[in-house]
Amino acid sequence: MDTNKNIETFPNPSPNRRYIIEHINSEFTSVCPITGLPDFGVITVRYIPNEVCIELKSLKYYFLEFRNKGIFYEELTNKILDDLVAISDPLEMEIVSQWSTRGGMNSVIKAKHIKQ
Amino acid sequence: MDTNKNIETFPNPSPNRRYIIEHINSEFTSVCPITGLPDFGVITVRYIPNEVCIELKSLKYYFLEFRNKGIFYEELTNKILDDLVAISDPLEMEIVSQWSTRGGMNSVIKAKHIKQ
Amino acid sequence: MDTNKNIETFPNPSPNRRYIIEHINSEFTSVCPITGLPDFGVITVRYIPNEVCIELKSLKYYFLEFRNKGIFYEELTNKILDDLVAISDPLEMEIVSQWSTRGGMNSVIKAKHIKQ
Amino acid sequence: MDTNKNIETFPNPSPNRRYIIEHINSEFTSVCPITGLPDFGVITVRYIPNEVCIELKSLKYYFLEFRNKGIFYEELTNKILDDLVAISDPLEMEIVSQWSTRGGMNSVIKAKHIKQ
Amino acid sequence: MDTNKNIETFPNPSPNRRYIIEHINSEFTSVCPITGLPDFGVITVRYIPNEVCIELKSLKYYFLEFRNKGIFYEELTNKILDDLVAISDPLEMEIVSQWSTRGGMNSVIKAKHIKQ
Amino acid sequence: MDTNKNIETFPNPSPNRRYIIEHINSEFTSVCPITGLPDFGVITVRYIPNEVCIELKSLKYYFLEFRNKGIFYEELTNKILDDLVAISDPLEMEIVSQWSTRGGMNSVIKAKHIKQ
Amino acid sequence: MDTNKNIETFPNPSPNRRYIIEHINSEFTSVCPITGLPDFGVITVRYIPNEVCIELKSLKYYFLEFRNKGIFYEELTNKILDDLVAISDPLEMEIVSQWSTRGGMNSVIKAKHIKQ
Amino acid sequence: MDTNKNIETFPNPSPNRRYIIEHINSEFTSVCPITGLPDFGVITVRYIPNEVCIELKSLKYYFLEFRNKGIFYEELTNKILDDLVAISDPLEMEIVSQWSTRGGMNSVIKAKHIKQ
Amino acid sequence: MDTNKNIETFPNPSPNRRYIIEHINSEFTSVCPITGLPDFGVITVRYIPNEVCIELKSLKYYFLEFRNKGIFYEELTNKILDDLVAISDPLEMEIVSQWSTRGGMNSVIKAKHIKQ
Amino acid sequence: MDTNKNIETFPNPSPNRRYIIEHINSEFTSVCPITGLPDFGVITVRYIPNEVCIELKSLKYYFLEFRNKGIFYEELTNKILDDLVAISDPLEMEIVSQWSTRGGMNSVIKAKHIKQ
Repeated sequence: MDTNKNIETFPNPSPNRRYIIEHINSEFTSVCPITGLPDFGVITVRYIPNEVCIELKSLKYYFLEFRNKGIFYEELTNKILDDLVAISDPLEMEIVSQWSTRGGMNSVIKAKHIKQ
Repeated sequence: MDTNKNIETFPNPSPNRRYIIEHINSEFTSVCPITGLPDFGVITVRYIPNEVCIELKSLKYYFLEFRNKGIFYEELTNKILDDLVAISDPLEMEIVSQWSTRGGMNSVIKAKHIKQ
Repeated sequence: MDTNKNIETFPNPSPNRRYIIEHINSEFTSVCPITGLPDFGVITVRYIPNEVCIELKSLKYYFLEFRNKGIFYEELTNKILDDLVAISDPLEMEIVSQWSTRGGMNSVIKAKHIKQ
Repeated sequence: MDTNKNIETFPNPSPNRRYIIEHINSEFTSVCPITGLPDFGVITVRYIPNEVCIELKSLKYYFLEFRNKGIFYEELTNKILDDLVAISDPLEMEIVSQWSTRGGMNSVIKAKHIKQ
Repeated sequence: MDTNKNIETFPNPSPNRRYIIEHINSEFTSVCPITGLPDFGVITVRYIPNEVCIELKSLKYYFLEFRNKGIFYEELTNKILDDLVAISDPLEMEIVSQWSTRGGMNSVIKAKHIKQ
Repeated sequence: MDTNKNIETFPNPSPNRRYIIEHINSEFTSVCPITGLPDFGVITVRYIPNEVCIELKSLKYYFLEFRNKGIFYEELTNKILDDLVAISDPLEMEIVSQWSTRGGMNSVIKAKHIKQ
Repeated sequence: MDTNKNIETFPNPSPNRRYIIEHINSEFTSVCPITGLPDFGVITVRYIPNEVCIELKSLKYYFLEFRNKGIFYEELTNKILDDLVAISDPLEMEIVSQWSTRGGMNSVIKAKHIKQ
Repeated sequence: MDTNKNIETFPNPSPNRRYIIEHINSEFTSVCPITGLPDFGVITVRYIPNEVCIELKSLKYYFLEFRNKGIFYEELTNKILDDLVAISDPLEMEIVSQWSTRGGMNSVIKAKHIKQ
Repeated sequence: MDTNKNIETFPNPSPNRRYIIEHINSEFTSVCPITGLPDFGVITVRYIPNEVCIELKSLKYYFLEFRNKGIFYEELTNKILDDLVAISDPLEMEIVSQWSTRGGMNSVIKAKHIKQ
Repeated sequence: MDTNKNIETFPNPSPNRRYIIEHINSEFTSVCPITGLPDFGVITVRYIPNEVCIELKSLKYYFLEFRNKGIFYEELTNKILDDLVAISDPLEMEIVSQWSTRGGMNSVIKAKHIKQ
């Protein structure tokens, strides 16, 4: 599973200003690696761009690649952060994944990267 | 596209006090430069005035000039900030643009200016 | 695509009383047959049982079979109604499918069967 | 399991007027007879009293008897209706049970009795 | 407890038209006759006036008389209906009392009068 | 107080079809004739036009004439209905006035006219 | 302005069953013919198909043609109903347009067609 | 317009403790000085009292004096802050005015005073 | 009025950990000392316990003692804080009282104690 | 009552990044040790993992062990924190328990652990 090659970027139109971009995908779905049943979630990508911004349509297709992949919540959230950091080198980036109810429980995972 | 000439200002009635003015336009629409389809958003202008305040009716007409213009979210948000800073020289100003769903995704852009 | 064979039923515990059973699946997803992109919806099954009730777990697996199938909203809603009527012969049954935003539009389809 | 003996009643204070009494228990829990896991629900009792009204505290204790009993949604809803009709002989009574999410699905069962 | 003497009325300004008047008291409180603890509720008075309308301020004072009285939900709802019908002789009148949570349960009582 | 002269109308663009027009004024205010204090309300005008429709801007100015007038809820609601029926002769018209809290109570008045 | 030529249809997949299709466009905008300022609304198309269904993408493009057209609420609602009835000959169709606040007022127009 | 004379105060019952008092007026209305049309707003007064507290009823009458005065949002918010600081000399005070929709835009003004 | 004698406490089960306890009473009522009319509020008690915790049932009875007492908002909030601090000597404690609408205005009072 | 033995863990997939995991159990129930009546709550577990993460299914079974145990809110919240810290040694962990209404009051307890 090598999903990050397909994410496109474009030049940041205001590279001299620290500003925040947020994309919220309310239609994320992947598969539980234990039961094989689908998981449904809302994935938020919040970042301060450096030299490039993430192109929205390719981000959507990147998310679609998880549709039939088996992956745990914690690993998935960190992988999305790693992939998007690798492709866009942001000043800061946070990924939040919020999951629908399983066995009466809701889970939320939040991971953050700050450029050194 | 040289929209900032039409924004009017009036003297700040309390120039000795740092206070916050916020105008929220829930009826903003522009056009996607790739597909030619309309985008719909909510634009928030939040600022601490310096010597002048932005006149509300001319601000509304300023926003209307984007109705049939093709422009990306990130560029638009930074352009509105640049235009309003140029015209009113505020102590601080923040622009937030929140966009309606496209392909299952919602985007929010936040850009801030602090007077040096 | 012959999905209805897997739905299980159990004897109606109160066959002499007309009463209403409603199952709401908030995690339905199928695929748009034109674009190949996923659709997301909420499917409500509301019925008055006759001799049998629909078993909940098998209903969930029935819905999962649409995950990677390409099908239109109108056809899907009518197919679910046809499948569930064929398997459970209810006195009345209504299927409602509510779909997430596409191009700024939300769609809802409602189909009803009354036993003759 | 013979729960209906403990429900107390008191004389209807306005026996000549058809009026509606509704008690909504937001803290109902029973056990799934297949998995042994708890189910959580909201049970609404809505009735037009005849000669007696159902005493609220004894109704609460009646519901508590299901806490560790294994029973299906459909059977439970009809049993509550049967028990409360037997004890209070109402002119009309409706039981609605709304269940928390299981496997992405919510269920609602509605059963009604009209005195002949 | 003879509360109905204090409710004032005034002539219906449109006696030839059947129209609906609704007064919702969100700050009703009385006392449970068993525990002596306060009950809190929302009381709705909905009626079609005949020759007189109920004066709002005196209605408020009428409700205040229950503040430290012990009375059951069912009896209270019917008593309010009886009192207001006696004083105003409406074409139709409905009283709805909605009570705050007690032991995990909420109660609602609805009683209606139609002039013969 | 003779407010109805100022309401303008325009020809119904679809006089052969019974359809519904609804205007909701969330910024209505008048004055309590007893205390002299302002009342605040939401006024809904819902009607099926006959030969003419009510012009929106003149309706707004009609409502403004009540700003400093003392009038009771019941009388006001019926007067608005009388005025708008007189000026537009609708097939059906309903006026609903919903009032903000006074002494813990909210009031709603609904009056309806059907053309004979 | 002759917009209805561009709406496409497809054969009703269940022509023997009366069922309901609803499309809700939350991103409608047209222009006020008096002030030249944009109006924003939510347009709901609810219908029972006869031999054909309305194709969703072409419906979206049909709505886009109003973006810079000047038209009143009442005329627009009836025109959309006329256009969609002409193109799809439904058994029943209802159009609801809900408009954003203008001068403190919100308007809603509802028009319905039933096939003779 | 010399409104601040009518606001009454009473001694702070806990002068040795810094604590917060907040009064929210949801029924404020004034007049736009340009159009002469009414403005509607919610005014929040939040302060830490010094030696005196502001009496609630006189505050209400103070707000009523703006009912038919023409004044801009920014000026009004600063004037209320100046008036209430002058009369009560608080340790801290913040005024927030939130205004209803005008031309698709909502405005919020926030001004704060800290005692030197 | 010497209410604090009746509040019971129990030993803090985790005295070595700073943690937060919050009790929210949505059914508080007292009496306005000027008009004699009842006031309704929500009282929040939020504290970090020291050696003892406040027993919930006795806290409820403590609040009930205000039911027919006349007391101003500001004084009441500070008195509750003083009483509960005296009885339980917390590391920190905050009292928030939120009051229902009076004359179109809502009030909130917040007082905090930090152990020296 | 020795519940913590059954909680399983798995290796943290990103041990070099401080990130937040949150599990919200909306279906928690235990028993009041005084009255023997059930309590209902929402338990939130929020932590920054160290070397291991808590396995979700075993956490659910851990919560189920409280179903028929008598325990106070304060003790329960601290016990869950102690148990989960013992089993997973997190960098930080916070437990929040929010309880349904008892006698008109809602309680919330928040306890936090930071690894030394």
